[in-house]
Amino acid sequence: MLGAIEAGGTKFICAVGDEKGQLYDRLKIPTTIPEETISKVIEFFKPYKLKAMGVGSFGPIDLNRESPTYGYITSTPKTSWGNYPIVPILKEAFSLPIGFNTDVNAAALGEVTYGAAKGLNSCLYMTIGTGIGAGAVVQGALLQGLSHPEMGHILVKRHPMDQYPGKCPYHHDCLEGLAAGPAIEERWGRKGVQLNECQEVWDMEGYYIAQALMQYILILSPSKIILGGGVMHQKQLFPIIYKYVQELLNNYISLPELSHYIVGPGLGNDAGIIGSLMLGQQALEKAN
Amino acid sequence: MLGAIEAGGTKFICAVGDEKGQLYDRLKIPTTIPEETISKVIEFFKPYKLKAMGVGSFGPIDLNRESPTYGYITSTPKTSWGNYPIVPILKEAFSLPIGFNTDVNAAALGEVTYGAAKGLNSCLYMTIGTGIGAGAVVQGALLQGLSHPEMGHILVKRHPMDQYPGKCPYHHDCLEGLAAGPAIEERWGRKGVQLNECQEVWDMEGYYIAQALMQYILILSPSKIILGGGVMHQKQLFPIIYKYVQELLNNYISLPELSHYIVGPGLGNDAGIIGSLMLGQQALEKAN
Repeated sequence: MLGAIEAGGTKFICAVGDEKGQLYDRLKIPTTIPEETISKVIEFFKPYKLKAMGVGSFGPIDLNRESPTYGYITSTPKTSWGNYPIVPILKEAFSLPIGFNTDVNAAALGEVTYGAAKGLNSCLYMTIGTGIGAGAVVQGALLQGLSHPEMGHILVKRHPMDQYPGKCPYHHDCLEGLAAGPAIEERWGRKGVQLNECQEVWDMEGYYIAQALMQYILILSPSKIILGGGVMHQKQLFPIIYKYVQELLNNYISLPELSHYIVGPGLGNDAGIIGSLMLGQQALEKAN
Repeated sequence: MLGAIEAGGTKFICAVGDEKGQLYDRLKIPTTIPEETISKVIEFFKPYKLKAMGVGSFGPIDLNRESPTYGYITSTPKTSWGNYPIVPILKEAFSLPIGFNTDVNAAALGEVTYGAAKGLNSCLYMTIGTGIGAGAVVQGALLQGLSHPEMGHILVKRHPMDQYPGKCPYHHDCLEGLAAGPAIEERWGRKGVQLNECQEVWDMEGYYIAQALMQYILILSPSKIILGGGVMHQKQLFPIIYKYVQELLNNYISLPELSHYIVGPGLGNDAGIIGSLMLGQQALEKAN
């Protein structure tokens, strides 16, 4: 049995499952202050005999094993979680091998193992919701370099009709600043779910997402792209994204049929938690 | 002894050397039609007893080992080289293990093995010359997915003073369309080397390069960035690039001191040919 934690900014999902991605029990815990949230997490796992655990976490996080703060959530704007040693605390509670990565890298791992990218050796998972982020598997391994990617903050060209200044406290009109859920709400005065019928909303949103995909494709060349997160529940976005990706790339590179190349998550909302389970499995294999 | 070919659009560089990156002989051959160029290449290598060969080539190229056109230069605008089976032809001539990748991936491999990124397990090598391209090493291996990256054609925001429409036949004002050597020449009416003293030229150029680096950093998180190619002989570009990278990222992520993080090639103009030698070494190791 493996444990999995999808550590998000508004909720923690805890689950137990097996290496086949089967989940046997799960619990949603609100993200409040660390002491409170983590003590409920520990309580949830206590009854289970686990072999390893995986944690897919909101970031930024420290993934450098040489660093004294390896396994920490680092400079997050959620102040009570800043410099929080999540992996060391779980290690102390459970004495288990613990896999650790970003929430979006975990989701990419879930999708490449059991989801829409199953059998491929690369994929990109992008989430568009209250924030924007992406993770990737490259030649079978989670993408990591100096640190983990921060793909939500790339630059985009402004849509010619867009007067909205952007919401990112660091970059104003970067991708997240223009296209995450809160930007949609602030620009149009209503939440995305109340704007289903407004074509111009989704045309602009699709334009920004397509630009991001163009950059990801030209830089990473993923074998499959998976789009998740709350904003992507607006299924009318997919054909708009295909249209703009086609227009922007202008046949410069040859891609598979876009409706098979850019898809929704095969694991639905469970990509992150199943990917976290796979992080646990990887930690177990590494420990043995 | 290993053979190395840096196959460029204007010249082929052939060399023989060893696994330590030492070069013993080399020859520059103009890129004309394939029959002519390749017969001179074959002639150069004939006297040597080689164990393997590496080819770093202009692209696009087919790197998919399952493909019937693996080892081909594919849809290049240089028409006589379109669909040219460079690796099969060399295999026929020499019956050796042949490593094959893009010229920029080869340069990244050279730099990570013996150059400015020596000892690191990731790096990005970007060349800015008659074209713009970049290759990368990710967790010790050359970046590859569905195909090889095409990082020169990413989108950038236009500099507010830039009225030049862009030179890319596919995307007009993508990075290469705005910032490669021919774009500089067409925008300002003179070649870059004749514009050394014009600050606005290099300010604009640095702005575009910095935008590209921001995207590469946020998407790939390389441990070191190496800038090569003819345009980067303008050393005054480096501080301008540092200034804009700093401004654009706005402390969102923590990076090493930029003058150590974004550097010129440790191997000078030999990054590509030494990297091609390393491609040969990899092919030899794989064959044994």
